[in-house]
Amino acid sequence: MAADNQQERLDPKWVVGFVDGEGCFHVSINKQPRMTTGWQVLPEFRVVQHSRDRAILNKLQKFFNAGAVVVNHDTRLELRIRRLEDLRKVVGLFQEQQLQTKKRNDLEIFSEILSLMELRRHLTAEGLTEIARLCWKMNRKVKPRYLESSETVRQKSHT
Amino acid sequence: MAADNQQERLDPKWVVGFVDGEGCFHVSINKQPRMTTGWQVLPEFRVVQHSRDRAILNKLQKFFNAGAVVVNHDTRLELRIRRLEDLRKVVGLFQEQQLQTKKRNDLEIFSEILSLMELRRHLTAEGLTEIARLCWKMNRKVKPRYLESSETVRQKSHT
Repeated sequence: MAADNQQERLDPKWVVGFVDGEGCFHVSINKQPRMTTGWQVLPEFRVVQHSRDRAILNKLQKFFNAGAVVVNHDTRLELRIRRLEDLRKVVGLFQEQQLQTKKRNDLEIFSEILSLMELRRHLTAEGLTEIARLCWKMNRKVKPRYLESSETVRQKSHT
Repeated sequence: MAADNQQERLDPKWVVGFVDGEGCFHVSINKQPRMTTGWQVLPEFRVVQHSRDRAILNKLQKFFNAGAVVVNHDTRLELRIRRLEDLRKVVGLFQEQQLQTKKRNDLEIFSEILSLMELRRHLTAEGLTEIARLCWKMNRKVKPRYLESSETVRQKSHT
């Protein structure tokens, strides 16, 4: 049957529909003392499925030719793509084959953040603040911890 | 933009991908004293989305030309299709444009149950038991209350 046949390539329009439902464009900003700014920006694209649907994650990995299928939580697995060049390819595909849900808004912000990272803006305090404000507008509008931190407040009071 | 444009028709392959992720084929068997058997079989196809994505549910309703967009829970809405003839059309589409995830198994059992209902088997105790056993094999394998009820046990002890 199709889902078990690793040779069969997925149809791009099917992939767009599936990702419109199940995909997630996410950017986290984590404390990372080893970084110059003290913070690390981590953009990722994820598709989470129950482990019974590992075959479809493998097929998606093959479709994107990127990322890894890893444990998400408990009986759930995820295809996770983190390399900047791979994320740019993924974003390009979904910009070309337009997403139909409001996830399209997340995609556009995600793409802006990638552009800032491609310009290495995430390595400066100003760039980090710009990225954090963009993050705040996506992913259910949770305020990034970076914007709450005392260091950021201090940095902002300097500008 | 596409998601807000009610005129634009969805691509069938996108629909299959989206439903592979977000769709649900479900059959419940509810106590219903007004029915001859005392039970009602209720098959339905559902797609649940946050209310911000009402536009996509409306487009799906238009695509299937069936069902209604109703409140699911809290801020969630669902497209719900319940008419037997409409469900048969929906199942036909997904059998033709094959689902890629394990949801395909649910679809096949759902289709068997529809066939039994088309033969009006759900109006007899034997048919009900057959349908309940099929239900048990889908939808996360929850044992239907019908199979637990004392009436069913009594009916089975007669056969």
